[in-house]
Amino acid sequence: VAQSGDEQSRLTLRDIGEFGLIDRLMAIVGPGDAAIGIGDDAAALGLGGPDYLLATVDMMVEGVHFRLPSSPATDIGRRAIAVNVSDIAAMGGEPRHALISIAVSPDLELTVLEEIYQGLADEAEQYGTSIIGGNTSRTTGPLAIDIVLLGTVPKGEIVRRSGARTGDVLAVTGTLGERAALHLARDAGLDLRPWREWVGTAAVPRPRVAAARALASRHLAHAMLDLSDGLAGDVHHLCAASRVGAVVDAEHLPVSPQVNAICRALGENPVDLALGGGEDYELLVALAPTAVDLAREIVAPLPLHVVGDVVDADEGITLAGPRGRQGLSAAQSWRHF
Amino acid sequence: VAQSGDEQSRLTLRDIGEFGLIDRLMAIVGPGDAAIGIGDDAAALGLGGPDYLLATVDMMVEGVHFRLPSSPATDIGRRAIAVNVSDIAAMGGEPRHALISIAVSPDLELTVLEEIYQGLADEAEQYGTSIIGGNTSRTTGPLAIDIVLLGTVPKGEIVRRSGARTGDVLAVTGTLGERAALHLARDAGLDLRPWREWVGTAAVPRPRVAAARALASRHLAHAMLDLSDGLAGDVHHLCAASRVGAVVDAEHLPVSPQVNAICRALGENPVDLALGGGEDYELLVALAPTAVDLAREIVAPLPLHVVGDVVDADEGITLAGPRGRQGLSAAQSWRHF
Repeated sequence: VAQSGDEQSRLTLRDIGEFGLIDRLMAIVGPGDAAIGIGDDAAALGLGGPDYLLATVDMMVEGVHFRLPSSPATDIGRRAIAVNVSDIAAMGGEPRHALISIAVSPDLELTVLEEIYQGLADEAEQYGTSIIGGNTSRTTGPLAIDIVLLGTVPKGEIVRRSGARTGDVLAVTGTLGERAALHLARDAGLDLRPWREWVGTAAVPRPRVAAARALASRHLAHAMLDLSDGLAGDVHHLCAASRVGAVVDAEHLPVSPQVNAICRALGENPVDLALGGGEDYELLVALAPTAVDLAREIVAPLPLHVVGDVVDADEGITLAGPRGRQGLSAAQSWRHF
Repeated sequence: VAQSGDEQSRLTLRDIGEFGLIDRLMAIVGPGDAAIGIGDDAAALGLGGPDYLLATVDMMVEGVHFRLPSSPATDIGRRAIAVNVSDIAAMGGEPRHALISIAVSPDLELTVLEEIYQGLADEAEQYGTSIIGGNTSRTTGPLAIDIVLLGTVPKGEIVRRSGARTGDVLAVTGTLGERAALHLARDAGLDLRPWREWVGTAAVPRPRVAAARALASRHLAHAMLDLSDGLAGDVHHLCAASRVGAVVDAEHLPVSPQVNAICRALGENPVDLALGGGEDYELLVALAPTAVDLAREIVAPLPLHVVGDVVDADEGITLAGPRGRQGLSAAQSWRHF
């Protein structure tokens, strides 16, 4: 018993993973008093007016989420804003204000930091978001950029992860696996010059604010989240919050020609990238089958693809393919630890 | 010319310092659309109701702001909340909600992180602050904890840095140099066991929420900020925002018996610690001389010491001592870079 106690006390984050960690930390900090607290894409506060205030925070760390100097430094700033805007969008909200907290080595070249801030400023402006504050810290380690994003959503239009119902379909905007394919292609040293335009769009996610607002304001989305971990893991998140199961259809996952071509060149399966690549920042929506046509119309020209069905919780979460159904593991997702 | 251009492009943060950096970054991100934006202790947003929403963010980095494992890990969490609560207090506000963003190595022991979160939760609870969200990231470097704090203040009671007027006095709550003395004593290996109680209080700042609220709601504070960089630097901040000068009286800086004793033991000058030690998290207030008695009454039993006078900007910022007046440099402050 003493020995197992010792082992327990030496547990690291690597042993329990990100979601095990979040569960343990939530048990310490408690549920909070927000209208919507920890566990959704953003917290929501009812401050007395007609809107909820939405608040989210997301950190990007050099060596984990980006590299220096190989990334264009403006892209680092743009991505940092974009992934947070995406969380606000996933609640049906509009981004409004950002605070920027950054930890930098005293030896970092000033021009690199200025490029990152130019990217932050450009991307914030593109989404009507004003930078209202922040903080600079020294670090002896990798550059870390933490973005706080505040947004608003009319109280009657907020969309949570928890509203999916048996009989709904699951749909995603855009295409999947773009960023994962870009990572693989760069790591393998593929010549991406012929695809310069695709590289530019795959490098910085385009949060789906307008599409999400349209779905929310028309009350078409029963549940919604933005795909950050990968479809497999994020379907698990949506199902856990909604207490439902799901069948994901492997043959209907939307993959772009460029991702297919990279997969062919590298001997990868595009379904794996679509399910587990992560960092898509497309919307995953649960909606009534009868609402799909209208939903497609209002998010056009952005495509909306039906990729599965919501089923009862006791049917679990499965992947349907040409050879039948198999369990779909959340672990196919990109893991933070 | 080409050579000086090259030098320019290789400037690092070490060359320009934290405040030079902030100026450059502010020029990139612009002024924002908040009622009060970058440059005060917290940003303020008018959301339509009777209160401003206050928002501030502050990052603490292992090896810079704390050490592992030598700090008690709960103290790390408590300080992280406290320094942000202090920023909300300095605007005259009440802390309400926190989001916690943390970057951790996968090899960190889980118990250490749980202790930090216990400290975060305990300190948040002490100030009536609910933890409503957050984010966990992986890092290959030092542990970084970024706290977002949201608060509220009635619109008519907000206190800025910019309201000090010639003829005001400058006053500080509590005593100065406590944390700096603790750092020095620990670095020198002084035996602090006889002062265990003092060590406990010096290790975690006690943000002056109630005192600040009282001064703000009675409209006694013309300008206020919380002392984080050290009195010398923070007087410069207040004077810059208010476009005034100041005379700080070296003989009236409040220093505790413990700080005096540590200074005697180490051959340090307590005035230096009081001016430049940093991390005091006491309030610096500009108020009318006629308001001092009432202000003392309403912040009691917390002491309020008059430490100087606000003068015209063209008189500069000086330190008055037994041998006359001399220029008071902001550089006596603790520097982040």
